[in-house]
Amino acid sequence: MSTIGPEIERLIQLLAKLPGLGPRSARRAALALLKKREALLEPLSSALAEAAAAIKTCEMCGNLDTTSLCSLCRDPRRDARLLCVVEEVADLWALERACVFRGRYHVLGGALSALDGITPERLNVAALLARAKDADEVILAVNATVEGQTTAHYLMDALAASGVKVTRLAHGVPVGGELDYLDEGTLSAAFKARRAL
Amino acid sequence: MSTIGPEIERLIQLLAKLPGLGPRSARRAALALLKKREALLEPLSSALAEAAAAIKTCEMCGNLDTTSLCSLCRDPRRDARLLCVVEEVADLWALERACVFRGRYHVLGGALSALDGITPERLNVAALLARAKDADEVILAVNATVEGQTTAHYLMDALAASGVKVTRLAHGVPVGGELDYLDEGTLSAAFKARRAL
Repeated sequence: MSTIGPEIERLIQLLAKLPGLGPRSARRAALALLKKREALLEPLSSALAEAAAAIKTCEMCGNLDTTSLCSLCRDPRRDARLLCVVEEVADLWALERACVFRGRYHVLGGALSALDGITPERLNVAALLARAKDADEVILAVNATVEGQTTAHYLMDALAASGVKVTRLAHGVPVGGELDYLDEGTLSAAFKARRAL
Repeated sequence: MSTIGPEIERLIQLLAKLPGLGPRSARRAALALLKKREALLEPLSSALAEAAAAIKTCEMCGNLDTTSLCSLCRDPRRDARLLCVVEEVADLWALERACVFRGRYHVLGGALSALDGITPERLNVAALLARAKDADEVILAVNATVEGQTTAHYLMDALAASGVKVTRLAHGVPVGGELDYLDEGTLSAAFKARRAL
């Protein structure tokens, strides 16, 4: 399209790479940015530049923060002998929102996947095995997907030698969930893991 | 959430203002940006800064371009006596993609809306009335919404004095559309405007 200049074209192409935005919604987003220049375009441009300059990956756990030992790893009130293993930073944030865990995290940076060629070497596994030596418990909070469960099994084997206690999140009926809408796998897991009242 | 630093928080809040992104997808987008720093975050940051510096609103038609008379207004091959009135730049782009119009455009910057307090003074109407004096035909390519049709009626009245020919886009069955899925208003318009084969 010759109507759109290369600057707008490039902006649209980059916006379309964001998850949740396709080519059409990227075009709408670019126009919204150009229409609200002072309120949106310029603040977003500087927020991105600031984030690029300030945000680092924590060298201990893989979390994102402005310091290279993140605020969670520096917090002395958090139990360093409890390690919670997650696939992505988004999972860490989700667990923090739930206010359920007061130990330290370890972000793998993904899950094992033969299809996508994600091997243990491409994940943050070696550092986990080193950290697990000083831990009492490693909680595998990976996704309940095929890739997540493959990763959990691999880590369970790899951690067996260190003798650390390895646990995983419970499977079952989500709180607020209706049985009628749940898949057979979830129902079967919830049934098998039933507990006395 | 204390886990997320103010830089990431601000980035998420700004991304959530883009059309098509809510708070949750803005969080995913921010994480994708921070994960793909060289491939996405830094190019997007500079693309936004470039766009902010380079893109101007055409003083003639309201289109967005790097020059203040846009490439469409400067193109001598385009018929200056044909004016196509659209609500937004996105509509101009859509018509250009259809390769159907070889005249000049006029972007209103929105549509009349009593509810949102959009009066003719807040739209690019005065300039349109001035440009219409030198035109042979004004095509009202506004949306087929209540606001668009209100705007069309208002412009028709306002342009009546100048004696210019005013037309509007045809209503009817969209190409590829199935009658069963169309609303009554479209079907009724298509039926009334039926043509001999």
